[in-house]
Amino acid sequence: MRNLKERLDLCSINTATLGHREPLSRTIDRIASAGFGGIAPWRHEVEKANVAEIARQVKALDLTVTGYCRSTYLPAATHAQFVANVDESKAALRDAATLGARCFVMVVGGLPEGSRDLNGAREQVADGIAQLLETAREYGVPLALEPLHPMYAADRAVLNTLARALDICDALDPERSGFLGVAVDVYHCWWDPALQASISAAGLNDRILAYHVCDWLRETRDMLLDRGMMGDGVVDLAAVRENIERAGYEGLIEVEIFSKENWWRRDPDEVLCICSERLQTVC
Amino acid sequence: MRNLKERLDLCSINTATLGHREPLSRTIDRIASAGFGGIAPWRHEVEKANVAEIARQVKALDLTVTGYCRSTYLPAATHAQFVANVDESKAALRDAATLGARCFVMVVGGLPEGSRDLNGAREQVADGIAQLLETAREYGVPLALEPLHPMYAADRAVLNTLARALDICDALDPERSGFLGVAVDVYHCWWDPALQASISAAGLNDRILAYHVCDWLRETRDMLLDRGMMGDGVVDLAAVRENIERAGYEGLIEVEIFSKENWWRRDPDEVLCICSERLQTVC
Repeated sequence: MRNLKERLDLCSINTATLGHREPLSRTIDRIASAGFGGIAPWRHEVEKANVAEIARQVKALDLTVTGYCRSTYLPAATHAQFVANVDESKAALRDAATLGARCFVMVVGGLPEGSRDLNGAREQVADGIAQLLETAREYGVPLALEPLHPMYAADRAVLNTLARALDICDALDPERSGFLGVAVDVYHCWWDPALQASISAAGLNDRILAYHVCDWLRETRDMLLDRGMMGDGVVDLAAVRENIERAGYEGLIEVEIFSKENWWRRDPDEVLCICSERLQTVC
Repeated sequence: MRNLKERLDLCSINTATLGHREPLSRTIDRIASAGFGGIAPWRHEVEKANVAEIARQVKALDLTVTGYCRSTYLPAATHAQFVANVDESKAALRDAATLGARCFVMVVGGLPEGSRDLNGAREQVADGIAQLLETAREYGVPLALEPLHPMYAADRAVLNTLARALDICDALDPERSGFLGVAVDVYHCWWDPALQASISAAGLNDRILAYHVCDWLRETRDMLLDRGMMGDGVVDLAAVRENIERAGYEGLIEVEIFSKENWWRRDPDEVLCICSERLQTVC
């Protein structure tokens, strides 16, 4: 396993970790100044800035864009809406290419409002990914399917395990083109009894496109916005990274923390400083 | 699939649904008066009453005890604590026998405080179940392993899928004695892409000991105490019961709703009335 001591060049910050409180260009500067090697920005902040300028800034600071967050949710109550959802992600893939992103993060979406058809939503997801894969190849930006924790199955993602994400990869990209893989986020996957086996399988097929860390707090107070800083929760982060790297992952370790009541209230440079320390000691 | 119309004798109420606001004997009377055929009480209410008296009352009212809730959490930081945890459940199994419970519900417990050893906790769980299985045979009360939703993996149950519960059953009770099986609760399992396959597998081995219903609210506000009334959420309840019954389940359908801000604030008879209506129309 790689030693992260004094290797912040191997570490990336997802901008959500700072709570999206400042313009993206300021956030980029903070992350670069703190010594990190990578950044993962969100569409809503890129789309209200100038994507070409953002791309220039990121390149000038020698930051790797470890992922571009994220797809428009795919499942829809009508075909027209489904098509619109796919098209929005196609447009975002163009921006991902401009940014030089290592992957486009696919959070696939939950059940359409009012629906109880989980299998139907899962079929729409596979259809949408198949369509986006064509665009991903055109722009040269891989799609990283991110299974979300099962507690988001209703409203955010009907894709909830790494094993199922890999099934989709194998079905749609049997030739292992490099344009379809997974984003492994410990917050979503830490509980999964098949985690180690799925990571190994993903590695064998070169499917691991991103690795996200934070921690699961034993007393989680909010289902969305109470993620923990690495080391403050129950996840054996060193063990997961050991599996990930044994499986062949050589990319950056990206910190992604949603934390409305704690980390998003702190000074951004303090947050980056603590991320840096924890990455080097507990990840 | 059985038609539940005017068949409340096939339906049971877990006393948690009424919020544990009244003495158990009063709750038993309400549930029987409303016409339900079964009840599932909790240890904390039985243990502060007289178990023999409760058993007499339940029998006199011809109520089936669809489950006795629940085991003491098994994983512990020390061996002495682990032994104490097992012993507490052994004592509770005696009460389950007195009550004539169809099963003893096993909520296996999360990580010991301060631990990050998920595999270790899962091993302790298998050990503890093996020990309890002996006692279960002695008392003639089957153990129903209830996998909890993965969002409870840290603090309530490291057993999170039906598939893994069945693995434990097959390992510890290959002869299918009837004393080890599963409790299927839609709240915990509805998201699982392997749900249908696991239910079929469980049925083939006569492992389905209990079936619990409520609903998953699209906008869940509390991770523990915001379960929905059947029909108010996203679960296709009719489809799940069809699978359960096709797999051979002939037991009662038990309603278990934790709902601090909604159902636990309503009049108990109103809650029972709405449970009754929803059981007959959406379950």
